[in-house]
Amino acid sequence: MRYSISLMMVVVMALVLSVFAFALDDKELLKEAKQIFEPIKEYKMPKDAVSMAKIELGKMLYYEPRLSRSGDISCNSCHNLAGYGVDNLPNSLGHNFQQGGRNAPTVLNSKFNIAQFWDGRAKDLTEQAKGPVLNPKEMAMPNSDLVIERLKSIPEYVSLFKKAFPGDKDAVNYNNMAMAIAAFEETLVTPSKFDKFLEGDLNAMSTAEKAGLSRFMKTGCIDCHTGIGVGGNSYRKFGMINPYQFQSDKGVYELTKDDADMYVFKVASLRNIERTYPYFHDGKVWSLHDAVKTMGHTQLGIELTDAQISEIITFLKSLTGEVPDYAKMLPTLPPSTDTTPKPYL
Amino acid sequence: MRYSISLMMVVVMALVLSVFAFALDDKELLKEAKQIFEPIKEYKMPKDAVSMAKIELGKMLYYEPRLSRSGDISCNSCHNLAGYGVDNLPNSLGHNFQQGGRNAPTVLNSKFNIAQFWDGRAKDLTEQAKGPVLNPKEMAMPNSDLVIERLKSIPEYVSLFKKAFPGDKDAVNYNNMAMAIAAFEETLVTPSKFDKFLEGDLNAMSTAEKAGLSRFMKTGCIDCHTGIGVGGNSYRKFGMINPYQFQSDKGVYELTKDDADMYVFKVASLRNIERTYPYFHDGKVWSLHDAVKTMGHTQLGIELTDAQISEIITFLKSLTGEVPDYAKMLPTLPPSTDTTPKPYL
Repeated sequence: MRYSISLMMVVVMALVLSVFAFALDDKELLKEAKQIFEPIKEYKMPKDAVSMAKIELGKMLYYEPRLSRSGDISCNSCHNLAGYGVDNLPNSLGHNFQQGGRNAPTVLNSKFNIAQFWDGRAKDLTEQAKGPVLNPKEMAMPNSDLVIERLKSIPEYVSLFKKAFPGDKDAVNYNNMAMAIAAFEETLVTPSKFDKFLEGDLNAMSTAEKAGLSRFMKTGCIDCHTGIGVGGNSYRKFGMINPYQFQSDKGVYELTKDDADMYVFKVASLRNIERTYPYFHDGKVWSLHDAVKTMGHTQLGIELTDAQISEIITFLKSLTGEVPDYAKMLPTLPPSTDTTPKPYL
Repeated sequence: MRYSISLMMVVVMALVLSVFAFALDDKELLKEAKQIFEPIKEYKMPKDAVSMAKIELGKMLYYEPRLSRSGDISCNSCHNLAGYGVDNLPNSLGHNFQQGGRNAPTVLNSKFNIAQFWDGRAKDLTEQAKGPVLNPKEMAMPNSDLVIERLKSIPEYVSLFKKAFPGDKDAVNYNNMAMAIAAFEETLVTPSKFDKFLEGDLNAMSTAEKAGLSRFMKTGCIDCHTGIGVGGNSYRKFGMINPYQFQSDKGVYELTKDDADMYVFKVASLRNIERTYPYFHDGKVWSLHDAVKTMGHTQLGIELTDAQISEIITFLKSLTGEVPDYAKMLPTLPPSTDTTPKPYL
C-alpha cells in the first residue's frame, strides 16, 4: 500500500512536471515566434462616411464585370471570394479564355505584401488594381477612357464616386477606381488560430500545430517566411540551392534584365496557403506536400522526410482564416443606361 | 363674399369627389389586376434539416466552378446574383469564350415558369440544371461521370450530399446535384411593390405606376403576360402580327420540326425586366423602350406612342424586387483533394 502510494505520487509529480515543461516549451515557442511573426487582427470598418463610401464602392467595382471588355470578367472571376481569393487554377483564364502568364495570388491579406504581383512591379494595391483591367490577356479593356466612359454612364456610380472622393472635381477617374478597389481589398484580412497564439493564447493551437511551428522555424523556412504575412515581405531566387524542376520563368529579371534578378520572385505569403493551390508562380505544383518538399530542396538544400513535411503542413493549416462575411455578401450592381458603351469581344 | 364662399365649396367638393373617384379607380384596377396576376411572397426557409441541407448544398453548387471543365465557370457566371440573375450580355460566354445560342434568362422567379429554357425543353428547374454543365458551349463537362468524380473526391461535398439526400445509398449523383441546385433556385423569389398592391395595399404603387398598369392591361400586353410571373406561363409565336426585325431563330420548331412551332418561344416573365437587359431570346434589343415598342408592333400590331411606352415602362419598373440576401452571401467552397480530377481546357 505504501509502495503504491509512493508510485502514484511519482506518477502525479511526473505528470505535473511534464505539463509544466510543456507550458515552458510553449512559452519559449511563443517568445521565439513573436520575434519572427506578427499577428493580424480582424478588420474594423472605419467610422467616417467617406472611408466607408470608398470601401462600398470598391466592393461593387471588385464584383463589376463591366470593367472588362466582354462584360464578363470581374476582379472576383480570378480572385474568387467564395474560394479564398483565388481561382485554384494554374493560370487564370481571361479575355477569350487566354491564360495568364503567372498564377493568380490570393487577394486575401495582400495589403501586407511588400509590393504586388509575383515580380513586385506594382508598389501597392492601388497600382495593382490598374493592371488587370487593361491587360489584353485579362480584362482586356482597350484603354482607361472606355472604363471611365462606362462608369460615368451609370448615375449610381457617379454618385458613389462623389461620395467616396468628395474633394475631387472629376471624381470618376481611373486612379479613384483603383483606390476604391484597394480600399475594399484592405478589408480582406483573415486572422487565424496562429494569430491568437501570437497574441498569447498558448492553447489556441494544438500540440501538433505547435510542433509544426517549431519544425517550420528550426528547418529554416523562416529565412524567408516571416513577418505579418508569413512571407510576402522579401524577394528571393527560386532555386537558391537547387534549381526548381519547372524553372523557365525568369521572374524579376524579365523586368530589370539584371542578372542578379534571374529567377527572383516575391516570397509568397503563407496565410491560407492550404486553400490557395496550385502553388508557386507557375501554379504547377498542386499538393501542399509537394510544395513544401520542393521548398526544402530548392531553397534550403534539405530533403525533408514525409514526417517532417506533415508536421510543417499541420502548422501551415493553422494559418487558414475565414473570408469576412462583409466581403462575401454580393453587392447589387447598378444598371447600365442607354449611353453605356456596350460589351464586345 | 358669398360668391367666393360658394366657389370655395365647389372647389373643395370637386377635390373630395376626385379623391373618392381615384380611390374607386384604384379599387377597380386592383380587382381587375387580381383576376389576371398573382402576387409572390418572400421565400420562407424550410424548417426541416433535410430541406435546408438541400438548399445549402444547392447554393454551393450554384457558385461552384468545378462543375465546369475549365474550373472557371459556375451557374453564377451567367446567372449572376450580383446582377439580377443574368449577365446582361446578348449571349453568355461559355467554355473557350464560346457564345451561347440564346440569351440567358434570369434565374430569379424561374420556378414560376411553365417550363425552362426559351423553348421550354426542360420541364422544371432540376432538368434545367443538368443542361449547361454538359453543354459543350457552356460548362463543357465531357460527361456526368466526371462531374460526380470531382464531387466525390471532396469529402465535404460527400457529407453534404448525404445530409441533403439521407435516403439515398449513393447520394452523390447527377440527379441529386441538379435537385439541390433547383432547391436553391426555388428560394430566388423577388416580391416587389406590385405584389403589395395585389395583396390590397392601394398605395404600394404610385399614381404613375398604377396608370402604367392600367395602360399595360388595356393595351393587350396581358394577352400573354399574366399570372404569377407576369408571363412565363405560355408559348407564343414571336411575330404574331408583324415579323420580328431580327427574326432568324426558329424557336420551338428547332425541337419539334412542326410548322406550328415556327418562331414560337416561351413568353418571358416580366419580373425584374428593367434589370435583365438585353431583351428577347437573342438579346438583340438593349433598351426597354425598344423592347416594349417591338412587342406592340410584332405581337399586337399596335404602334405605341413614346408616351404610352413610358407609361408601360413605369409599371414594369414596379416589378423590380430584390435578390434575397441569403442568395447573395457567397458560400465558402470546400477544397479539392489530391484525388480531385483537375480542370482542363
